[in-house]
Amino acid sequence: MNKLTITAVTTALLSFGIAGNAMADKHAFNDAESAVEYRQNALSIMRDNFAAMGDMVKGDVAFDAAIFQQRAEDFARLSHIPWAGFSVDGAMPGDNTDALPEIWDNWDEFKQRTVDFTADAEKLAEVAAGGSLDDIKPVFMAAAKNCKGCHDNYKD
Amino acid sequence: MNKLTITAVTTALLSFGIAGNAMADKHAFNDAESAVEYRQNALSIMRDNFAAMGDMVKGDVAFDAAIFQQRAEDFARLSHIPWAGFSVDGAMPGDNTDALPEIWDNWDEFKQRTVDFTADAEKLAEVAAGGSLDDIKPVFMAAAKNCKGCHDNYKD
Repeated sequence: MNKLTITAVTTALLSFGIAGNAMADKHAFNDAESAVEYRQNALSIMRDNFAAMGDMVKGDVAFDAAIFQQRAEDFARLSHIPWAGFSVDGAMPGDNTDALPEIWDNWDEFKQRTVDFTADAEKLAEVAAGGSLDDIKPVFMAAAKNCKGCHDNYKD
Repeated sequence: MNKLTITAVTTALLSFGIAGNAMADKHAFNDAESAVEYRQNALSIMRDNFAAMGDMVKGDVAFDAAIFQQRAEDFARLSHIPWAGFSVDGAMPGDNTDALPEIWDNWDEFKQRTVDFTADAEKLAEVAAGGSLDDIKPVFMAAAKNCKGCHDNYKD
């Protein structure tokens, strides 16, 4: 998929109002343990992409526009995925998760943060398609701030 | 996101030629071990979604059109993700992976399979948006056959 196509698709997605995500309130997991594992795996590979982009933003790794764009596209796709693993009965805090009970005490606020997060990720993919690190930096930093904000409130 | 919006977006994606995926030949992983972990996590949550849909297709779990649609959408997003973890120098077969050397011996054929797989997943998401299990079944079975075909050739 060339850059022009990605840009066109990003524009199409935004014009169709896909800045939010489609978090379901019910989801088919067999048990809470598998839901926790699911969300942890999803968050892990999401973080891998964000960390790789962060290395370039910080200058620890040379900026490569093509790699950054691929990472941003995958990060935007993944930004939809983990939340289903939170919406399962019993998938609450325990020995095997750092998720705090505040998530379920503030469910609507948590859900809104996931929608905002997906919007951040889509915006980052859009700006990454342009290939300019100067344009990317402020959008990346805004996304990073929102990552941290959610972790501060909802992760042990 | 309501059903109409998802259908419109699916149509938009297909009309923009996003039946294929954007597998990169280079990707920023720090080491082969992290690339292997990345692709295993991605394949794991992809499989979770496919298995949950399979339970409904087989009748082991009651068909719920909304859950199936959510799973199919997430599966389509995830169908783009694992392949970057294969395209890293040194991320070859070893103690910690079931990937066979045939992947790298037949790299172009493997890549084509990932493109075909993403097309299968997009088609499944499209038909899932219609909510008819009768329409879903043949598309799901075709995708399952292609999953198995790739595993038979490339997974220990």
